[in-house]
Amino acid sequence: MRIAVDVMGADHGAAVVIDGARLALSAFGAIEKLLLVGNEDQIRAHLKASGFNDPRLEVRHASQVLTMDDKPVDALRKKKDCSIARAIEAVKNGDADAIVSPGNTGGILSAGTIRLRTLTGISRGAIATIIPEPQNEFVLLDAGANVECKPLHLAEFAVMGSIYAREILRKPKPRVGVLANGTEESKGNELTQEANRILRRMDLNFIGNVEGHDLFHNHVDVVVCDGFVGNIVLKTCESMARGMFSWLKAELTANARRKLGAYIAKDAFQSLKKRLDSENYGGAPLLGLNGVVMKAHASASPIAIMNAIRTAKEAISHNVNDAIVRDMAKAADVLSELSEAA
Amino acid sequence: MRIAVDVMGADHGAAVVIDGARLALSAFGAIEKLLLVGNEDQIRAHLKASGFNDPRLEVRHASQVLTMDDKPVDALRKKKDCSIARAIEAVKNGDADAIVSPGNTGGILSAGTIRLRTLTGISRGAIATIIPEPQNEFVLLDAGANVECKPLHLAEFAVMGSIYAREILRKPKPRVGVLANGTEESKGNELTQEANRILRRMDLNFIGNVEGHDLFHNHVDVVVCDGFVGNIVLKTCESMARGMFSWLKAELTANARRKLGAYIAKDAFQSLKKRLDSENYGGAPLLGLNGVVMKAHASASPIAIMNAIRTAKEAISHNVNDAIVRDMAKAADVLSELSEAA
Repeated sequence: MRIAVDVMGADHGAAVVIDGARLALSAFGAIEKLLLVGNEDQIRAHLKASGFNDPRLEVRHASQVLTMDDKPVDALRKKKDCSIARAIEAVKNGDADAIVSPGNTGGILSAGTIRLRTLTGISRGAIATIIPEPQNEFVLLDAGANVECKPLHLAEFAVMGSIYAREILRKPKPRVGVLANGTEESKGNELTQEANRILRRMDLNFIGNVEGHDLFHNHVDVVVCDGFVGNIVLKTCESMARGMFSWLKAELTANARRKLGAYIAKDAFQSLKKRLDSENYGGAPLLGLNGVVMKAHASASPIAIMNAIRTAKEAISHNVNDAIVRDMAKAADVLSELSEAA
Repeated sequence: MRIAVDVMGADHGAAVVIDGARLALSAFGAIEKLLLVGNEDQIRAHLKASGFNDPRLEVRHASQVLTMDDKPVDALRKKKDCSIARAIEAVKNGDADAIVSPGNTGGILSAGTIRLRTLTGISRGAIATIIPEPQNEFVLLDAGANVECKPLHLAEFAVMGSIYAREILRKPKPRVGVLANGTEESKGNELTQEANRILRRMDLNFIGNVEGHDLFHNHVDVVVCDGFVGNIVLKTCESMARGMFSWLKAELTANARRKLGAYIAKDAFQSLKKRLDSENYGGAPLLGLNGVVMKAHASASPIAIMNAIRTAKEAISHNVNDAIVRDMAKAADVLSELSEAA
């Protein structure tokens, strides 16, 4: 398989991304070609300086970069030779099976939607993120691609999330829930109530509404919501995890006795921090596009980039996109009512 | 001041609530009368058994209880003699200045809205909750009263939350933000974007959009959102805090060395747990009603009930409701456009 890696647009420069590509090449024999897309001079200079040389590498020049401040649609029109667009183009042309990018999320999503189009049966691409919890990990989608959604979109997210949880997280029968303000059927807003009605008729392991209290005790594997809510929930969790660690640190350094205890048990905190680290989760897939598209964190380390490449590789080998098209075709009867209403 | 305490409807029975009332009476000299509302036999039996006797106590009988499973509006129609309705009635009749109840939130809100009505200038009551963070605590509202909101409602929540933060949390100039999927002006859904436009023109310390990442690093004092989003955020935070503790426990008990360290530093964990405990936050006020209404947690301990009574007492002595009416009158010009559109 062949993967295009957009090496530009990360917070810490191209070198970090290229180092991640190197780790991936040495770890994954299944990769036949890795396209490094970005400023060719920068790429070649870093390859030379770091002594990185592999026959499976190919450099593809792109003279421009989409920055985090760029407004995606405008910027893509102006920066036609940006690395995200060139990497997406490689997938479109069949030169690559997947793209991995740490760049501007809106830019990746726009370029992906415009150039690759959505999969047959899917009307909106969605950002999926994996959130770890003590005994499980769950997929949350949409994490921010679609601020305003219709019930049909939530139904699509449910199908895509379920397949992703099955194929990538290896959960044979993922429990799918709609995020709402209570578990009772009467709870929810217009959007989630209508989504509930249709999801109950679909071929999913649908458990109905889930609420915030259900998220961290191994109750649900796929949490479906619109991108406004999903983005708030994801960022609240990230923010709270950081807050809890800073609180814990303050408590554990408050006096000499606590400092001693913390020192003795210190690998417990390191281990917890590691389990919470998004680095292990290999990036967030943009599901529903006609091509495998993986967004890595803008501040991703080389290991995080490697894991994003690994996840892209798995999405290809597990034919995630074919499964989405197949399951959406099966759901066509149930969803056709909604498509008309939507 | 006189406070009506609904002693029924808590998870662990009336005794716990009555014990909380006892703590409050001994702690707060400003309380002139405490009305215990509920089953008189049960109340008298517990007062006798526990040797609790205070001239400021008055028992008011109510033969029925609204359970957690009752649908509020229906149940209030059928259970006219329930303790929540009787306690609200005491405020309505001028026998009490405030009500504290650990019962069915929807029931308290419905009874409060129907019998007390909303304050002049306020169209919707809202549930406010206090969420602690390492260097601060913020008010989140609405935490679940209003699933579907209009921009006008968010503007009202901003005014009420700001006054609550100033008067009860003692923040001279509370920073008010609208919760959205990003901080940029272009982010948000229709509701939050329109709310933003109006809030910028109001006499508040309005800092614009806040996102999930802003919640736990002392960036905002009042977080405004609709009750669907607020309920999800509140419960996600509670769930994640429990998840983090269970994770930490698993890590700290994984081997003998870590167990030893954890034992030595154990008061650090207890202290953190205490700071996160909602017990200290004295319940969630239902703001915007023509009377002070305080919801205590259904599983509240006596100390939590005492703190809810303390918060009710402070809301009375700081004239929170008068301040809301005054500030809403000042905002009338700006809001009149919205009222027409809403």
